[in-house]
Amino acid sequence: MARRAVAVLGATGLVGQRFISLLSRHPWFEIRVLAGSERVSKARYGETVNWIVEGSMPEEVRGLNIIYARPEELPLLLESENVDIVFSALPSNIALEYEFELAKRGFLVVSNASPLRLEPDIPLLNPEVNADHLDLIEAQKGFRGFEGAIVKVPNCTTAILTLSLKPLADSFSLELVVASSMQAISGAGLTGLPAMIIHDNLIPYIEGEEEKVEKESRKIMGEILGGNIKPAGFKITASTHRVPVLEGHTIAVFAKLKEEAPPQEAVKVIEEFRGNKIKNLNLPTAPEKPIIVRRENDRPQPRLDRMEGNGMSIVVGRLREDKALGGLKYIVLGHNTIRGAAGTGILIAELALARGLV
Amino acid sequence: MARRAVAVLGATGLVGQRFISLLSRHPWFEIRVLAGSERVSKARYGETVNWIVEGSMPEEVRGLNIIYARPEELPLLLESENVDIVFSALPSNIALEYEFELAKRGFLVVSNASPLRLEPDIPLLNPEVNADHLDLIEAQKGFRGFEGAIVKVPNCTTAILTLSLKPLADSFSLELVVASSMQAISGAGLTGLPAMIIHDNLIPYIEGEEEKVEKESRKIMGEILGGNIKPAGFKITASTHRVPVLEGHTIAVFAKLKEEAPPQEAVKVIEEFRGNKIKNLNLPTAPEKPIIVRRENDRPQPRLDRMEGNGMSIVVGRLREDKALGGLKYIVLGHNTIRGAAGTGILIAELALARGLV
Amino acid sequence: MARRAVAVLGATGLVGQRFISLLSRHPWFEIRVLAGSERVSKARYGETVNWIVEGSMPEEVRGLNIIYARPEELPLLLESENVDIVFSALPSNIALEYEFELAKRGFLVVSNASPLRLEPDIPLLNPEVNADHLDLIEAQKGFRGFEGAIVKVPNCTTAILTLSLKPLADSFSLELVVASSMQAISGAGLTGLPAMIIHDNLIPYIEGEEEKVEKESRKIMGEILGGNIKPAGFKITASTHRVPVLEGHTIAVFAKLKEEAPPQEAVKVIEEFRGNKIKNLNLPTAPEKPIIVRRENDRPQPRLDRMEGNGMSIVVGRLREDKALGGLKYIVLGHNTIRGAAGTGILIAELALARGLV
Amino acid sequence: MARRAVAVLGATGLVGQRFISLLSRHPWFEIRVLAGSERVSKARYGETVNWIVEGSMPEEVRGLNIIYARPEELPLLLESENVDIVFSALPSNIALEYEFELAKRGFLVVSNASPLRLEPDIPLLNPEVNADHLDLIEAQKGFRGFEGAIVKVPNCTTAILTLSLKPLADSFSLELVVASSMQAISGAGLTGLPAMIIHDNLIPYIEGEEEKVEKESRKIMGEILGGNIKPAGFKITASTHRVPVLEGHTIAVFAKLKEEAPPQEAVKVIEEFRGNKIKNLNLPTAPEKPIIVRRENDRPQPRLDRMEGNGMSIVVGRLREDKALGGLKYIVLGHNTIRGAAGTGILIAELALARGLV
Repeated sequence: MARRAVAVLGATGLVGQRFISLLSRHPWFEIRVLAGSERVSKARYGETVNWIVEGSMPEEVRGLNIIYARPEELPLLLESENVDIVFSALPSNIALEYEFELAKRGFLVVSNASPLRLEPDIPLLNPEVNADHLDLIEAQKGFRGFEGAIVKVPNCTTAILTLSLKPLADSFSLELVVASSMQAISGAGLTGLPAMIIHDNLIPYIEGEEEKVEKESRKIMGEILGGNIKPAGFKITASTHRVPVLEGHTIAVFAKLKEEAPPQEAVKVIEEFRGNKIKNLNLPTAPEKPIIVRRENDRPQPRLDRMEGNGMSIVVGRLREDKALGGLKYIVLGHNTIRGAAGTGILIAELALARGLV
Repeated sequence: MARRAVAVLGATGLVGQRFISLLSRHPWFEIRVLAGSERVSKARYGETVNWIVEGSMPEEVRGLNIIYARPEELPLLLESENVDIVFSALPSNIALEYEFELAKRGFLVVSNASPLRLEPDIPLLNPEVNADHLDLIEAQKGFRGFEGAIVKVPNCTTAILTLSLKPLADSFSLELVVASSMQAISGAGLTGLPAMIIHDNLIPYIEGEEEKVEKESRKIMGEILGGNIKPAGFKITASTHRVPVLEGHTIAVFAKLKEEAPPQEAVKVIEEFRGNKIKNLNLPTAPEKPIIVRRENDRPQPRLDRMEGNGMSIVVGRLREDKALGGLKYIVLGHNTIRGAAGTGILIAELALARGLV
Repeated sequence: MARRAVAVLGATGLVGQRFISLLSRHPWFEIRVLAGSERVSKARYGETVNWIVEGSMPEEVRGLNIIYARPEELPLLLESENVDIVFSALPSNIALEYEFELAKRGFLVVSNASPLRLEPDIPLLNPEVNADHLDLIEAQKGFRGFEGAIVKVPNCTTAILTLSLKPLADSFSLELVVASSMQAISGAGLTGLPAMIIHDNLIPYIEGEEEKVEKESRKIMGEILGGNIKPAGFKITASTHRVPVLEGHTIAVFAKLKEEAPPQEAVKVIEEFRGNKIKNLNLPTAPEKPIIVRRENDRPQPRLDRMEGNGMSIVVGRLREDKALGGLKYIVLGHNTIRGAAGTGILIAELALARGLV
Repeated sequence: MARRAVAVLGATGLVGQRFISLLSRHPWFEIRVLAGSERVSKARYGETVNWIVEGSMPEEVRGLNIIYARPEELPLLLESENVDIVFSALPSNIALEYEFELAKRGFLVVSNASPLRLEPDIPLLNPEVNADHLDLIEAQKGFRGFEGAIVKVPNCTTAILTLSLKPLADSFSLELVVASSMQAISGAGLTGLPAMIIHDNLIPYIEGEEEKVEKESRKIMGEILGGNIKPAGFKITASTHRVPVLEGHTIAVFAKLKEEAPPQEAVKVIEEFRGNKIKNLNLPTAPEKPIIVRRENDRPQPRLDRMEGNGMSIVVGRLREDKALGGLKYIVLGHNTIRGAAGTGILIAELALARGLV
C-alpha cells in the first residue's frame, strides 16, 4: 500500500513535534507538508526548529521547507502535494478559520485545537472509547456543507481520564466523578511556562482546563442520538493543577458508581478492556493494551510509566474502595502529548482510513 | 516572666530542626536539652547536624551537646535541667515508650509522632480548630495515671485541611469531603526520599497518609462527650501524593455541604475566621489571620505562599461552586513542617501554658 | 535625616522587584517613582505585578501607579517628585537612551543594564573591591557634559567572582583565572527561560556572559590612571552555564598565583577581608563580612547559603591547593539578584551618598 | 555463535540495572546469574527490584532468583552455570575480595568498582582510547597468579573526559587540562542522594571524584612500558559538582595545548575520530561515532543529548579558542551510567572476546 501524504499544521510547536516524531516511519502515512507561522516560512525545518522531543529529529523532515499560507491559500497548496489528511496542532485563536476552510475543500482534518470540540456534529474522538462517534461525519458534511470533515482530539487530561472510566462505566455505571489532576509542564507548550514560575512550585490552575474535562468527558462517553451526541448522564467535577514534571499527566480519580464494584472485579474489567470498537482493525498506533494496571502501592509514576505502549497506554494503579463516596478511587497516568494529543490524533486518522472515510 | 526550659527530642531531624528554629528567641520558651539517637550522643549540635532549614543554625544551640538516654533515664535527666515541657519529633517506632514514660513522670509532652493520635483521651490539637479538646487532659491523667500529659500534633496534611474546613463546617455543615493532596518532599524527612525517586516525577502514594487524613480529621473536628471525643459526622475520602516541591502541602478540596454556600459568602466566613478559641490569649506563635484568602486564579502556590504568617497561616484560593457535588471546591496550602508540625506543636504548648496546664 | 526620594526603572521585572524589596524600609531611601513599560503604564503596582520575590510585596508600593515616559520626558517627571537617585533595571536595548538623558539632567543613575559597563570613564563598581573607581565621575561629567552621572553595577557572575578574587589578588598577585559557573534561572529574568528548556537539564551557554566575566573582571580589579581605568593584568577565561537552581550563582574558580599561597593562609586573608574602602562608612546594605568562608567539604550550596548577609555576602568553600595550575582552587557562591544586581546597586548609591556625590 | 553466559554482581543497584538493560537481547552475551546482597538473596528479581531505568524490566530477568554467595563460594556457583564473564557493579568496600577470588579462579572480571583502578598491571579501559592496554592482562596473570583477569571501567566523568581529550592529545599534544563537571544525580546511586539535599540546589563536592579524574585520566591516556602503564605527562586539575539532572555528566573543559589548534581544525579531528583501536572489530556496543560534535551555541544538553549512540557516544559542543590559557575550551557531555559505567563495561567484554582473551 502506498503511504498517504499528510500535512502537519503548527509543526514547530511541541505537539507538532510529537506528530512528526510519531509519523516518521509510519507504515500508512508520509509527511509531505509542514506548515508553520509566517515568521519561519520557507526556513528548513532542521535549521529552524529547536527539537525537544527525546531522540534526534527524524531525518526525513530535516530538509523540508516550512510553508506558511493564509487559510484560503492552504487547500490549493496541499492539493498540489497530494495531501488529503491534515493534522492540526494550530493555536486556538487561528485554528477555526484554517480547519473550516480545509474541511470545506475536502480534507480530513484531525485537530488537536480546542475550538469546536463541543459542537454536537463534530466527533470528539478517543478511539477505544467512542470510535462509533465517527459516524457523525455524515451529518457534519450535510449540515456544514463540507466535502471533507473535522474530527477533534480531546483535551489531554480528558483523553486519559475517559479511557480509564470507560470499562468502569460499562460494568458499574457511573454516577459521579471527582478528578484532581497533576499535569506536566509540556502541556503548556514549548515556551508557555517560565521556569521561574514552576521551579520548586506548583500552579493550582490551568486556564479553561476544568471546564474542558467536565464537558468533554460527558460528550466522549455519550451516545449518538439522531445525528447528534447525547452527553453521558454522570456528574463530574474537576480540579486541575500544574506540577514540575516533564511529561505525563497523573489524575486522582474518585468515582461514585451505581452498582457495587469490588476492587478486584474492577481491576479485572480494566485489565481486560481492549477497546472493542477498534481492536480488530490492527491500527498501527493502537497499543495492545490501552490500559495497564499496576499492583504496586506506589505506581503509576510519570517518569517511569509514561512511555508504556509507546506513550499510548494509560496506567492505572492504587485502585481501592472508596467507602465515603460509595465506589472506587484510583490513580491514572497517561502521556499528555502522545495519548493526550498527537498519538490519539494519528490513531483517529488510522481509524478513519481503516473505515474508508478518507 | 522567666522563660520555661524545654527539650526537643529527635532534635537532629527535619521536624526537630524546625522546632529549634521556631523556639530560638521564643519569648516564653528556652531550649535547654536536645536529644538525639545514640549515634550522635554527646556530639555538639553545631558540629554534627547538617542544618537544612533556611537561615543559619541559631547560635544558642550550636554549643549544646546532644544527649541520648533510654526511656527510663530520660525523665531524671530532664528534671536535672528543670525542663517541664518536651517537644517530641521522635520516630514513630520509639515515640510511644518515651512519651509514656515522660507523661507518667509529670512532663507535658507535645508530640508530632503518629502513635496515639487516635486515642480517645489524648487531645489531637489544631488550636484554632479545637482548643477545647485540651480539656481531655484531666480524663487522660486519671485514666492513665499520668502526672503530666501527652498532646498530639495532627498529621501535616490534616492540620492544614481541618483548619480550612472549620469555618465552612461552622457555617454550612459538612456532609462529604474529597481531598487530593500534593505534598512536599520535606514531609518525608531529611533522608527519607531519594532524589532518584522523585526527580522529574511524582509518587502517588504516602504510606498511611490517607487513613490519617480521614480519621484524624473527624477526631479534630469532633466534640468532647463524656470525657472522650465523638468524631464529627461528615464523610471524608483522601488521595495523597508526593510532588517535587521543597516545602508546602497543597490540597484540592471538594466539599459537599448541607446548607447552601454561595462562594462569596464562604470566602467571607473564611476570611473572618480567627480561631475564637484562642484568639484572645495572645499566643506568640498564633498568626493574626490563621487563614488568608487569595483572589487570583493561580494562587496559592507553595513557593510563594508557604511562609505566610511565618508559616503558620494557611492560604485558601480558587474557592468556587461545585455543582456536581453540591457544595464548594477550593485549594488550600500550608507549610507542612511549620503549620503541619513544629509550629502547631509550639502553639499547643503556648496554649497549655496560657491555660495554666503546665 | 530625611530619606532621599528614588525611582526604580524597569520596576516590574525580577531585578526591579529585588530593588523594591531591598529599598522598602531602607533608612536612607524612599521609593517615590516606579517606571515600567507602556503596556503597564498607570496601572497600580499591586494590581499588575506578579510578585515573585520571597515574602509579600511591600505595602508601600502596592498603591503606587506605574509610570511610563519617553526618555526626554522622564527627567521632568522625576524632578516633579524630587527624585535625584535613579536605579535602572532597564532592558539593555533601551537602557542607553534613558540613562544618558537622566545623567545629562543631573540624576545619579545606578544601572544594572549591561551597555556602557566597559566605557573607561564610567565606574563599574563592586564597592568592597573598587570603591575608589567612583572618582571617575568627575572625569565622566566633564567628558560627557553630564550634570549627573552614571555608575554601573557589574554583571552578576562578575560581581561575585571579583569579590572573591580581591583578597587573593592583594596578597598573592593573580596571574591567571579559570572560572566555570553554574548560574541560577533567576538570572534569565522572570520569563526569559521556559521550563521545558531547563527542566531536568542544564544549558551550557549564556549569551554574552563569558565575555562580560572576562572583560568586566579586569576592569573592576584595575586601577585609575589619568582619569581612566587601566584593567588589571591577569589573564582570565570563563565558561558559563545555566542550572536548575532558583537563585544563587556558584563558580568553580582555579587561580594561578604569582606568589606562594598556602591554603590556610589564603583562607585567613579571605576571612579577614572587610572591603577597607568602604568599611568605615557604615553603609546600611554593606554586610559585616563581605566574604564568609565555610570549612565543610560540601559548602557553599545555593539553597542553603545564598541569603548570607541578607544576600550581600558571598560564601567561599573548598579552598584547596591546585598543583596542576600552580595556585588555588575554590568554590564561590553569591546571590545573583542581590549581590549580583539590586543589592550592589543600592550599596553603590549608599556609597555615593556617603561620599557626598549626590 | 552461542551466546556466552555472564553474571552481574550488584545486580539490584543502578549500575547493575543498566548492565541488565544493556545485556538483555545482547547478541553475544546472555545473563545467567544475578547476584545481590544477602538481604535479597533468593528473591525473584522481578518481585524485589524497583526498576528505575527507562523502559520496563527485561522479561528475561524477571523470573531469575537473585543469588548471594560469599567470595569463596561464588566461583563454584558461577562455574555450575557455565559463566565465564562477570560484570561487577559491587560496592567499593566489598569489591576487592570478590574480584580477586574470581580472577584467581579463571573468570574475566569487568568491574565498575573503584578499587584497583590505579594498579599498574590492571587495565583501566576506555576502549576507543586505550584498547591496547588490554595487553597488560598477560603481565597481570603472571604477577598475580590469576587464571582469569580483572579489567576496570574508568570513573564515569573520566571516561567521558578522556574520550573527548584523545583526538586533541593525538593532534595537538596536551599540556594542561582544567575540568569542571556538572554531574547527574544517578551518579550517586539509587538511594545515595536524598531529595532534600539536591532539590533547588547543587552540591559542589563529590567524595574522591576529583582525585579519580586527575589520576585515572593520566593512566588511561598513558602508554604501556615494560608491562606497566606510564601515565601521560599532561597536568590536570578538576573541580566536580552535583547538579539536579537525572542522567548525563556535563564537563566544561579548558585545555592548554602544546601545538596550535585552530578551533575548526580541532572540530575536524574530533569529528573524524573513530577509535581506531577498535573500529574494525564491529563490537556491538561500539557507537558508529564515539564523539558527536554539535555546532549550536547551546549544546550539548543532558536531557536532549545523553542518549546519543544509545548512550555510548559523547557529545562535544561550544569548542572555541581559549586565549587566556593558550588552547581550547569546550563542553562535553556523556551518559554517566552507560558510557560512564555499564556500557563501557560491556564494550570492554566485547573487546576481550573479539581479541580471544576469554
